[in-house]
Parts: sequence; C-alpha cells; structure tokens
Amino acid sequence: MLKHIISTLKQAAPATDAVQAHCDGPCGVYDPSAARITAEAVLSMTKKILDLQSDGDAVKYQNTLSRYIAIKEEQAQKTKEELLILWTDYFKPVHLEQFPDLHDTFWKATKLCSACKVEVSKEHAEELMAAVQKIHTMFWSSKGKDVAWVTAS
Amino acid sequence: MLKHIISTLKQAAPATDAVQAHCDGPCGVYDPSAARITAEAVLSMTKKILDLQSDGDAVKYQNTLSRYIAIKEEQAQKTKEELLILWTDYFKPVHLEQFPDLHDTFWKATKLCSACKVEVSKEHAEELMAAVQKIHTMFWSSKGKDVAWVTAS
Amino acid sequence: MLKHIISTLKQAAPATDAVQAHCDGPCGVYDPSAARITAEAVLSMTKKILDLQSDGDAVKYQNTLSRYIAIKEEQAQKTKEELLILWTDYFKPVHLEQFPDLHDTFWKATKLCSACKVEVSKEHAEELMAAVQKIHTMFWSSKGKDVAWVTAS
Amino acid sequence: MLKHIISTLKQAAPATDAVQAHCDGPCGVYDPSAARITAEAVLSMTKKILDLQSDGDAVKYQNTLSRYIAIKEEQAQKTKEELLILWTDYFKPVHLEQFPDLHDTFWKATKLCSACKVEVSKEHAEELMAAVQKIHTMFWSSKGKDVAWVTAS
Amino acid sequence: MLKHIISTLKQAAPATDAVQAHCDGPCGVYDPSAARITAEAVLSMTKKILDLQSDGDAVKYQNTLSRYIAIKEEQAQKTKEELLILWTDYFKPVHLEQFPDLHDTFWKATKLCSACKVEVSKEHAEELMAAVQKIHTMFWSSKGKDVAWVTAS
Amino acid sequence: MLKHIISTLKQAAPATDAVQAHCDGPCGVYDPSAARITAEAVLSMTKKILDLQSDGDAVKYQNTLSRYIAIKEEQAQKTKEELLILWTDYFKPVHLEQFPDLHDTFWKATKLCSACKVEVSKEHAEELMAAVQKIHTMFWSSKGKDVAWVTAS
Repeated sequence: MLKHIISTLKQAAPATDAVQAHCDGPCGVYDPSAARITAEAVLSMTKKILDLQSDGDAVKYQNTLSRYIAIKEEQAQKTKEELLILWTDYFKPVHLEQFPDLHDTFWKATKLCSACKVEVSKEHAEELMAAVQKIHTMFWSSKGKDVAWVTAS
Repeated sequence: MLKHIISTLKQAAPATDAVQAHCDGPCGVYDPSAARITAEAVLSMTKKILDLQSDGDAVKYQNTLSRYIAIKEEQAQKTKEELLILWTDYFKPVHLEQFPDLHDTFWKATKLCSACKVEVSKEHAEELMAAVQKIHTMFWSSKGKDVAWVTAS
Repeated sequence: MLKHIISTLKQAAPATDAVQAHCDGPCGVYDPSAARITAEAVLSMTKKILDLQSDGDAVKYQNTLSRYIAIKEEQAQKTKEELLILWTDYFKPVHLEQFPDLHDTFWKATKLCSACKVEVSKEHAEELMAAVQKIHTMFWSSKGKDVAWVTAS
Repeated sequence: MLKHIISTLKQAAPATDAVQAHCDGPCGVYDPSAARITAEAVLSMTKKILDLQSDGDAVKYQNTLSRYIAIKEEQAQKTKEELLILWTDYFKPVHLEQFPDLHDTFWKATKLCSACKVEVSKEHAEELMAAVQKIHTMFWSSKGKDVAWVTAS
Repeated sequence: MLKHIISTLKQAAPATDAVQAHCDGPCGVYDPSAARITAEAVLSMTKKILDLQSDGDAVKYQNTLSRYIAIKEEQAQKTKEELLILWTDYFKPVHLEQFPDLHDTFWKATKLCSACKVEVSKEHAEELMAAVQKIHTMFWSSKGKDVAWVTAS
Repeated sequence: MLKHIISTLKQAAPATDAVQAHCDGPCGVYDPSAARITAEAVLSMTKKILDLQSDGDAVKYQNTLSRYIAIKEEQAQKTKEELLILWTDYFKPVHLEQFPDLHDTFWKATKLCSACKVEVSKEHAEELMAAVQKIHTMFWSSKGKDVAWVTAS
C-alpha cells in the first residue's frame, strides 16, 4: 500500500534527473522501438507460417517453412534481448518505485518471447506485441514524455 | 532531367502495389528506426569519447576509452548492416525509378559508417544521422506515408 | 508477510514436480556452472588488468591491456546472458513463491555484470561471484539437491 | 556517353595509386575468394537438397533436410556480407568511373543471395556464381591484375 | 615405448608448474564443464527428437522438430568449440608427453560433435558424453586434482 | 618407421576416393584460402600497429590503435576457426596415414594464432602465414591437385 502511494507520488514528478545521475552510460540511447520491430516480425512470421500452403512441391514448402520458423525463432530471441537491455541497463531502482510491477512485466514479456518460439501461436504473438507496447508506455512515461506507438506494418 | 521528371511523376503515384508483388517476404517488417537508433549511439559515443577526461586513474581511463571505441565500432557496424538490409531487401527496381540516387545515397551512407569507425569525428557522425534521416524519408515516401522523424536522445 | 509464510512452506516441499510440468523444454539442461565459469573469468581479468605493468614497450602494453579489457567485457556479457537464461527460461511462477527475492537477486546480479564492464573493480567482480553463488544455491535448492560450489581457479 | 569514355580511359591506366590514397585501411586485404567459397557452398547445398531422397526414416530425412536448408541460408548470408564488404569498403568513387555498372552489379548479386535463400533454385545459385565471377574480374581488373578464377569444388 | 615411460613418470609428478609458466594468459579459467553442459544438451535434444510424436497438428510438429534439430546443431557446435579451446589454448607440449593420445582424443571427440549434427543418434550422443568425460579426467589429472564428474540432468 | 613407409606409399596414390566415401557432407566445399585471407589480415594489422605513429592527437591515435588490435584479434580468431574446420571436418583417418604430422601441424598453427593475438609480433604473423601455406599444400596434395599459393596483398 505504502509502495503504491510512493509510486503515485513519483509519477507526478518523473525521476529523470536522478536517473541520469545513476546512468552507467555505455551510450544512453535506449529506445523500445528496437523490441517493437522484432516483435512485429514474430507476429508477421507466425501469421505466414499459419497461412502457408504447399503447392505440391514438397521441397519448396519445406524450405519456406523451415526459414519462417528459423526467422520467428531469431526475431523472438532478439525481442527478448532488446527487452532485457531495457530491464537490466535502463531501468534503475528509482523506477521500481514508480512501476512496482516492473520485474513482473519484463518477466512475463520475456516468457512470451519463449512461448512464441515454442509454439506457432497468433494469440501469444499478439500478447507479445501488447507487452512490448506496455513497456513502451512505461519507458516513455519514466522520461516524462508521451511518445506515440507507431508500428511498421 | 528526364529521370527527374519520371521520378517526380512516380512520387505522385507511389509504387506500393508493384512493390508488394516483388517482395521476397522473409517478414515484411522493415523500419529505418533500427538504423536510426544505432546511428544515434554512434553520435553519442563519439561525443563521449571527445569529452572524456582522465581523473588521473590511467587504468580507469583506458577501460572507459576502450569500451567507448568498441561500442562506437559495433554500433556503426550495425548501422551499416541495417541500412544494407533496406538497400538489398526492401528497395526494388521500381523504387530506383522513383529515387534515381538510391544507390548513391546508400553507398555514401555506408561509407559514412566506415568513416565513423576510422575517425572520432562529430562532424561525420552528424552527417551519418542526416543520411539516415534522408533514407527514412525515402523509405516512407516509397510507401506513400509521412512518418515523423523522432529520435530517442 | 503472508508471502514469506507461503514461501517458507514451499521450501519445505520443493516444487520440482510442478516445475517439470511447466518446462518449455528446449533442452531441459540448465546449469549455473556456465555463469560461474564466465564470472570467474571476469574476476581473473579484472585482477590481471590491475596488476599489469608496462616493461617500457608501449605497444605491447596497449595490446595486452586492450585485450584484457575486451575479454572482461565479453565474459561479463556472457555471465549476464547465462544468468538471464536461468531467470527467463528455468525459473517459473512457482519458484517465485519459494524465492520471493528471485527478481531482485537476478536484477542486482545482472547490474553487477554491467558494473564489471564499466569499472575495473575487484570488489564488484567479487560481489558478482557471490551473486552467482547465491543463484547456484537457489537453483539447486529449487531442484531439492545440494550441489557443492566448485570453482575452476 | 562521356562517362563511358572516361571509364575507358581509366581502364587503360588503372586507378590503383589514387585508390591507395583513399583507402580507409582496416587491413587492406580484400579478396573476392571469400565470397566465391560461400557461393560455391550455396550451389552445393542447393544441389544436395534437390537430390535428397528419404530412405524411409522420416526423422533422419528431416534432420538432413533442415540442416541443408540452414547451411544454404547461412552461406548465402555470408556471400551477401562478403560482397557488401567489397562494395562499401573496397570500391571507391574512382572505381565507379571505371565500372559504371558497379552499383547495379552488386545490387543484383546481393538480390541473388536473397533469391537463393527464398528458393531452392539451381538456376539462381548458378547465376550467383556467375555474378561473383563478374565481381572477381572487376576487382582484379581494378588492381590492374589478371587473377585466374579457380573454384574449390 | 620411451614416450610411454616418460609419460608415466610425468604422471607421477604433474606438470602444473611448468604449465603455468607457458600459459598464454587470456584468463586462465578453463573448465571442461562448459563442454559437458552443451554435450548434455545434445544428448537431451537427440532423445527428444527420437521421442517426438505428432498429435495431428502438422505445423506444430514441424515447429518443434525444426527447433530441436537447430538446438542440437547449435549445442554440438558449441561443444566442439569448447573442446577446441581446451586443445589449442590449455593443453601444452608438456601435456602431450603426459597424454600421448591427446590429439587423437580431441580429434575423435570433435568428429563425434559432427556426427551428432549429421545424424539423430542416441548412441553417438552418448559416445560424445563419454569422450567429454574422458577429457574432463585428463584435464583435472593434468592439474593434479581429482574433480568429480557431475551432470546437470 | 612403418608409419612413414605407409605414408609414403599413400602419397603415391592419393586417398581421394576413400575420402569422399567418408565425407560427412555439410557442403563439401573446403578451401584453405579462407584461412589464408584472414592470416594475411593478421600480418597486415601487425605491421600497421608496429608502424603506427601518433601525430599528437591522442584520442585519434587510441582510436586507431584500439581498432587495429581488435581487428588483429578477430582475424586471428577466424584463422583459428577456419583451420580447425579443416582439421575436424575435412581431414579423415586415411589422411593421418598420408600426413603423420597432421595433428602436430594443426596444433602448432592454432597456437600461432593465439601467439598473434597475445603479442604484436611480425615474426609470429609470418610464421602463421608459413603454417597456413604448409596446410594449403597438404590439403591440395590430399586431393591429388597442385594449386598455386596466391596471396591478396
């Protein structure tokens, strides 16, 4: 309860300055768009796999299916890595007070990346997109900015 | 001159449909933001290298300087790769008519990536950002969309 | 308070069976030794950097120092990745009840990986080793086993 | 027309000296053999995929087919990267006058790499070999040397 | 014969000191556990591939099978790399006298890694585990230590 | 002695056919040129490091020196990997009879790769080139061909 109150107070006065002071500074350029682009690719490949029909040429079908599965795997892994860069490098203890569900949000989002590898699930790929959008909102709100959610597809 | 007229005409009627037909379709999710994020990191690291002062602890200074140079190298390489994905995979012959300077634009942009590795040049890093912005505009105009240029830093 | 009680109860009856049922099964072979080996390398390189003396040959000194810094960076990054595989893939919600500080433990451990990159700090490298050992204990206790902590160096 | 005349003149007096002066010098060792070796692997894997017969053991067949497709993908990607190193790093504006079709040659060659991934096409794999051979000839002619085209297979 | 006598003598007085003197010192942390973990993953994936049954959903089956084959490939490759680090970096000429079959042991072990990629063979995966265990014993005996062989699975 | 006689006999009748029969067939395209190109880069970078002079701009000097060291490291590592592909994948037991010093040749060549990382030694870089040339000769002689040793620089 107390935590929630602190967090609410913090939200009114974003922690930006304090964050800069703790920044470990490899480059300072963080952008959730990186995770969004790869998550879009996961969703796109998932749909293409589900829609794929063989025209009778088995080798051609296998080549396309194998490649789609491999690209889905790779893009889900990149999404995981991009999200984890935000969690381990960008977000600081001060943010945890602002977003008490910070850890849980990232944990579930990365587990969705795994689910999108293990399964061919449009539902999970869409949940991953939603999780990335939630992180996009948390990220920009932590910087006291309101940046629109724009997708490439 | 003739080429310029053709290109102007093409811009009025974007080649989107024709493009889809030729798309090789690994995922269909292209976004110049990927190159923009890494180019921002190149500029950021270049500035940090130029601003770096030793506080008398030589090993600490060397550790920071070495890391900044390595990160600049890595991010310039990624920028190159992201730009080349657009050049080799997204842009099609039909776009070449729309943008007669397509090849030259990408060639110079990738050579700027190399220059940003070889040198510690704020000027070249800023030229790289401008080149990526030019490609951002070409890309979205090829899709008949007007997407704002937003940076993370 | 309630959480602490639940967690204490859970520890008496390890969640192994339930965990197997939720395993996403890429291979099922998890071993904190992977993170321990790379964390040892981080500590070893940190000590070697701090002990390095030039014998008057500046190029030789720079070659050795640059390589040590690069290896420290690489091994700290691998430690981070190995730890995050445990956090995102091995540990499941049921473990969170058993270890209420699960997220915090991993967050701090991965932030120590970053600190070992950014600094040349024997103290932080030793704290990283301690954090990996704590995770080793959590991991094996979650499986109801008591595996000794053995280092290679 | 003028360009063609300039290019013809340039060819008589290779631009080697001027090139050295502009060389960005990461190592100065460029060799189209790197792209040729990987393009040979693409052709070899394409043929093996087309020739592959199941002996009734479905898992064995899938294991071999999946691996062949993955190796074809990887080698086509490496071919692309090796070609692009020549285009972005080795070739300089002075060469563009010598080879007015420089950009087009590389664009088409890299698009053939994509085609060899997307399809299982002996025809496209052979066209890729021909494109790499054309670049081999351009490269050595830009250095005023006549180096034989030798393949490993 | 002479070699065998020398090797027997060496074994009585492990060459640890001499080895340290020749150590090329990238980090000094060698541990055959790294190869053991990935070899376990190869064996695990091989068994899972052999046990995999389709529940009628062809795309789901293909997704799982493709991923298992790719993970087996990756883990066999990592096993090869980890073994070769020991062979090229850790083991020194003095060890060759202690273990006259050093080269042959590593050559066969790395060829088993290839066999585990090319085939789906439980027998070869188990032979790989045995080969890694043999190397584990050689490694620790070269350091005059007796370290237990513990697996994660 | 016996081994030497067998090997001499084998050299008269190259083992090409037998080799094909045992080939594990990922692609069948082996070419020692890959290792030769990267070994040339190691030698080139070593010379450039030794020749590098500061023009008074310390940051510019450090940027160039750091990059040269990193490229030398990367190319020496690639040389090692390319050589080991030949040793583990191409060469078969039948070749061991033809070349009794096969293992020793590769072991020393890979240890030279390490030496070229650890040191800035023109002598060792030239010895590495000689070792790669020796392997080039063994390789082509194993195929009963006489392929000229051509370098890119």
